[in-house]
Amino acid sequence: MSLAPLPPSALSFLDFYLPPKSHPNLFTTLTYAASLDSRISLGPGLRTTLSGPESKTMTHYLRSHHDAILVGAGTFVADNPGLNCQYPPADTKNALECSPLPVVLDPGFGIEITQQSKVLLNAAQGIGKYPVVLVSEDRYLAFPDKISKLKLLGVRVLTIHNLSSQTSRSKSWKLIQNTLQHELNVKSVMVEGGAEVINDLLLASHNEDATVNSVIITIAPVYLGKGGVQVAPSLPLDRLTNTKWESFGRDVVMVSGVR
Amino acid sequence: MSLAPLPPSALSFLDFYLPPKSHPNLFTTLTYAASLDSRISLGPGLRTTLSGPESKTMTHYLRSHHDAILVGAGTFVADNPGLNCQYPPADTKNALECSPLPVVLDPGFGIEITQQSKVLLNAAQGIGKYPVVLVSEDRYLAFPDKISKLKLLGVRVLTIHNLSSQTSRSKSWKLIQNTLQHELNVKSVMVEGGAEVINDLLLASHNEDATVNSVIITIAPVYLGKGGVQVAPSLPLDRLTNTKWESFGRDVVMVSGVR
Repeated sequence: MSLAPLPPSALSFLDFYLPPKSHPNLFTTLTYAASLDSRISLGPGLRTTLSGPESKTMTHYLRSHHDAILVGAGTFVADNPGLNCQYPPADTKNALECSPLPVVLDPGFGIEITQQSKVLLNAAQGIGKYPVVLVSEDRYLAFPDKISKLKLLGVRVLTIHNLSSQTSRSKSWKLIQNTLQHELNVKSVMVEGGAEVINDLLLASHNEDATVNSVIITIAPVYLGKGGVQVAPSLPLDRLTNTKWESFGRDVVMVSGVR
Repeated sequence: MSLAPLPPSALSFLDFYLPPKSHPNLFTTLTYAASLDSRISLGPGLRTTLSGPESKTMTHYLRSHHDAILVGAGTFVADNPGLNCQYPPADTKNALECSPLPVVLDPGFGIEITQQSKVLLNAAQGIGKYPVVLVSEDRYLAFPDKISKLKLLGVRVLTIHNLSSQTSRSKSWKLIQNTLQHELNVKSVMVEGGAEVINDLLLASHNEDATVNSVIITIAPVYLGKGGVQVAPSLPLDRLTNTKWESFGRDVVMVSGVR
């Protein structure tokens, strides 16, 4: 993938919404790209390219400003994402340094990470960090072999007590943020998807179970239709503040704080 | 309602997407306001204010540039809309002249229009036009009394053959556009909602059963949540072209042609 550089106007547009140099707690940025009908893909498990080259560069710029990047298990399986940072464009020599820690949220401990996974190929090449998987404690205890196998590949597995689909998914975000901050020593995380993760985090923000500091959304001028995977929290959320919009090629990007 | 005037930049942003002075066929503009999760209201029948004052002025500016404005029966019942034009702001003396012809799409002939309906109050005051209702032929024949009653109120009822929920709703848009152009002598129409009407028209555009010339969408930085009424066509649509975005207060407006 070759990235186009960001114009100075785009950089200044984003800067106010990035994690500040010093921040007492974990700074959480929620970011995703969606269609006009708030779909992030054409269907479950289907990788769908939505945003144009300018917005893609922006994603990598954002990654360079966060300690960690979190995605859900479904996105990890569907997209086989690299989760590293290629910003500044065409500068691979500091790719490792600017890359965030990849964190995969996999309560059921169901995903397979192999040497061929893009995230591990990047780590082996020194252009990305080795990932961490967050799993529910009960599932962790059920798969001791899997843990040692992953350890050999450089993948750490951390457990979160009661992180499972049975618990309130809004409440579990408090635990996830605690783990990131206190066990992984992460000061800033960007949450990139998929829809289930985003919807749960939006609900957690509504319920004040989790703090979201910035929301950065790319909207592409297409409709993916009813069959697509949608971002829509289970309850309304009207807490966005200091919202600004800017065109990035044919897309628009919204940056916002959260009250 | 008092409107804020539009800045010159907003006017020039919109102008390319307005119906041209002379256009051989009917010019159709699809326009609506939605939340980030593509909801136009919090739930069926719930009037929800989404867009800020700047976008509201824009709606009235758009109305002044179209011969007709079309809404579905559900929106008519939920919103009791005035469907007139208050642009330029604070200038009521040409409100009648600049107001579009209100057209209500009511295949089942189920809505009640009374003297207290806002659209008729406006017409009686000379600040809006008398509306037309488009109904399915079979329903028209079933309610002769209703037709005479509406006639006395100044409401015309036109029938469209086979316009009913039984027929393909994509195909019915061809008939609707024909009726507007040839029976009502309308050269331009803006379709404002609700979701069912918008989704059907987007599908008709996908299927090439109807022509949509411009799409103008306001997006407000809130989530209305899963329970809201959503705009999402039943099939994907990637035919928007010449897309531009502009901030209107805290909202963004997208203007677009359709390939």
